[in-house]
Amino acid sequence: MTRYQYLASVISQRIEQGLYPVGVRLPSIRVLSKEHGVSITTVQQAYRELEEQQWVEARAKSGYFVAHRKIRPELPACCNATQCSLTIPQWDRVLEMVNPVKTGEIALGFAAPDITSSSLKPLTQALSRISQRHSLRAFDDEDIRGCAELREQIARLLIDSGSHMDASDILITDGCREALSIALRCICKPGDLVAVEKPSFHAGIQLLHGLGMNLLEIPTDPAAGISVDALELALEQWPIKAILVTPTVNNPLGFSMPVERRRALLRLAQEHDVAIIEDDTYGELSYPYPRPASLTSMDDTGNVLLCSSFSKTLAPGLRVGWMAPGSYMNRAIHMKYISSGPTAGLPQLAIVDFIKQGHYLQHVRRMRSQYQHNRDLMTRWVSDFFPCGTRISRPQGGFLLWVELDKRIDAQWLNEKLSELNISIAIGAVFAAAGRYDSCLRLNYARELTDEIKQAIRQIGRLIQRRMDENE
Amino acid sequence: MTRYQYLASVISQRIEQGLYPVGVRLPSIRVLSKEHGVSITTVQQAYRELEEQQWVEARAKSGYFVAHRKIRPELPACCNATQCSLTIPQWDRVLEMVNPVKTGEIALGFAAPDITSSSLKPLTQALSRISQRHSLRAFDDEDIRGCAELREQIARLLIDSGSHMDASDILITDGCREALSIALRCICKPGDLVAVEKPSFHAGIQLLHGLGMNLLEIPTDPAAGISVDALELALEQWPIKAILVTPTVNNPLGFSMPVERRRALLRLAQEHDVAIIEDDTYGELSYPYPRPASLTSMDDTGNVLLCSSFSKTLAPGLRVGWMAPGSYMNRAIHMKYISSGPTAGLPQLAIVDFIKQGHYLQHVRRMRSQYQHNRDLMTRWVSDFFPCGTRISRPQGGFLLWVELDKRIDAQWLNEKLSELNISIAIGAVFAAAGRYDSCLRLNYARELTDEIKQAIRQIGRLIQRRMDENE
Repeated sequence: MTRYQYLASVISQRIEQGLYPVGVRLPSIRVLSKEHGVSITTVQQAYRELEEQQWVEARAKSGYFVAHRKIRPELPACCNATQCSLTIPQWDRVLEMVNPVKTGEIALGFAAPDITSSSLKPLTQALSRISQRHSLRAFDDEDIRGCAELREQIARLLIDSGSHMDASDILITDGCREALSIALRCICKPGDLVAVEKPSFHAGIQLLHGLGMNLLEIPTDPAAGISVDALELALEQWPIKAILVTPTVNNPLGFSMPVERRRALLRLAQEHDVAIIEDDTYGELSYPYPRPASLTSMDDTGNVLLCSSFSKTLAPGLRVGWMAPGSYMNRAIHMKYISSGPTAGLPQLAIVDFIKQGHYLQHVRRMRSQYQHNRDLMTRWVSDFFPCGTRISRPQGGFLLWVELDKRIDAQWLNEKLSELNISIAIGAVFAAAGRYDSCLRLNYARELTDEIKQAIRQIGRLIQRRMDENE
Repeated sequence: MTRYQYLASVISQRIEQGLYPVGVRLPSIRVLSKEHGVSITTVQQAYRELEEQQWVEARAKSGYFVAHRKIRPELPACCNATQCSLTIPQWDRVLEMVNPVKTGEIALGFAAPDITSSSLKPLTQALSRISQRHSLRAFDDEDIRGCAELREQIARLLIDSGSHMDASDILITDGCREALSIALRCICKPGDLVAVEKPSFHAGIQLLHGLGMNLLEIPTDPAAGISVDALELALEQWPIKAILVTPTVNNPLGFSMPVERRRALLRLAQEHDVAIIEDDTYGELSYPYPRPASLTSMDDTGNVLLCSSFSKTLAPGLRVGWMAPGSYMNRAIHMKYISSGPTAGLPQLAIVDFIKQGHYLQHVRRMRSQYQHNRDLMTRWVSDFFPCGTRISRPQGGFLLWVELDKRIDAQWLNEKLSELNISIAIGAVFAAAGRYDSCLRLNYARELTDEIKQAIRQIGRLIQRRMDENE
């Protein structure tokens, strides 16, 4: 991301947050140049970018003003799911999704971060240096809880989410998936009922399936998160054992739950004495900074289990996640012991080094800007190239866009057509146990949005349009 | 291991296998020097070592002869466990065992291999080189089954165990523990009954506990493995869903099951249509070469699931294991997906490199010799320093000795006393759900057996002797 793109993203974020209302005059080029310590040309380029994205408009001799933006694409609809305990199918479709990428494929379906950023260089250097300097003994973490130094660093990072923990509150896991698996097994037995957002992350759904648990899907607002009213009703009617939510930078919807709703959710769980499993994998990639406080940080009962990882902030291939299991620590250690034993030491040591040298926060900051910039661009492409009436999520962080097509379009059909063009998407159907998302899809905008990707989005749009024309 | 130690271990192995019967004259120093391409001094040193270990005796002017060895310590007794379904306690004691090693502690309780061997150097070099050359992209194994090249190499290595597989039969896991966890969940539901050896590896017992399964402990002969008769009786009386066994280089007993008993076990399982989970973690560390054929290689029903890893042959900290789940592959992939997602890529790539350059087989060969040499030495120390009547296992591979003390000695008490001396052992009690092993312990002899370790064994022996004197 260049300097001017960064500046543009700062300004668009301020506009979005309402700091600069529509019609207001923006700071002059000279002022911005001074404020940000960049050249006049850079500011001019930033404003041109913002103009192109319809955030601002230039008025002759007066400067730049916040524009009345073209009507924003509507958010996806909130699904009023019937509340009933469901068993989970769809593994075949998930398996298709997790197949390796074919050569030359434009893979828009994975939830992979951009791991080509030069700001990750010190991490590979640390991996190399540590493997060179130390014998294998250094990688043999005999502590089932994981490397103590890394747990300390994570405790420090968690301050941003409002939590005050120390190393002993944290357990290192093989990615967030193991953390979630352990958290669920800390609280529930097979046959137990778990409330989840609808839609929700497909691995979570498959996890429940694989562990023999049942799920209850709760209607979830694409802008504000799980419906607390619907959840309350469900808690009264069903023997729910745990609530599994992703309140900050939700996957797939991208929302961050407003603080009031967080409080209400926590109160409700406490009243019913039900544990909350908080998936915070994307939390640090929240565009607004400081990021929203986690549910875990607001809780004082020990009944909220935080699960997260370095998979989205650094790289999934490191397989380093963690959890703060609250009052369930002893049971969590047991589950970790039987799930895979201690987590590999080398990537843990490299991450410690990366954080301590200050590279981590710098990298995450950079990624946040890049992803926010890419969100705006991808949103524009989808609203430009997809048929009228397409609904698009408004992610508050991360790199995943949720798109709701006309009801007549089946995303599975679309994906099959796209595979002929060597393009792949994530189909909506796998994000819920009981259908309803057949005409939805999820797109990844993590990497540099090249012209090739632009053309791919255009091709997807054309296919959809043609299908709709045929159906009329 | 020096040249003369290697030569000594070759000769003692031949004696043990009965190639040189007691009283027979051994090859002359000159002949051995020529045969092995080593100096006369080396052969002399080897014979001196063998003399000290009481394998051979020198007769003036006639050379060396196979000695009548001092009466071998008796093998531990076979436990005639009451056959009943058991739930599993003891997690607290296992947790104590998995605590990190204290500084200066002589830790004889862990099942850790020797990872200080110079033959592992090319592995750390590969880790370093690969992290330097490649971007993080290389480590992101998008294939949930693991790196295809590694699976291919593993298939080749499996030829030694009699199996003919290809890459598609193999699933990479985060260590053998995850493989076992996946295998159990492929076959059993919580509440189901699994037959295991008595005694058996404590992590396996904890696994069953953590997965909510019940276990049935089958009497197991310290020299020949699980009692097929007892198992048959159990299969007739109980609804057993799976049999979990470690037939090759058993942990903790060290035996390798004779081929006839393997066949009988397999036949029995097939008759009752019960799956076998074969833990082969130590299989490649079998002293006799070629190693015994695995149960998996003898099966043609797809109902035997092989679980193994590089944790004992290379280093546990790599966290790379694998399984060949037979006809359960699809379900195993699902379980892997929900357990931890794909396994980390970097160690997989480094292991591929290590195997392809020929370092792997060389390293394993070297370790086998070292461990066999250490077994003989550790066995001598224990029989010299521990009270009369101590029973000692006769490991056929690996680096773990099982010791049965006088019934009056409680190993837990012993371990507490030892912790004052900064020595730790593995207590027998955790190797079974229902007691019976309170006076047993397991000792690790992987690393170089220094004088410090010799003194530790002497101290353990003294403590036991004193306790017995007090009790009289």
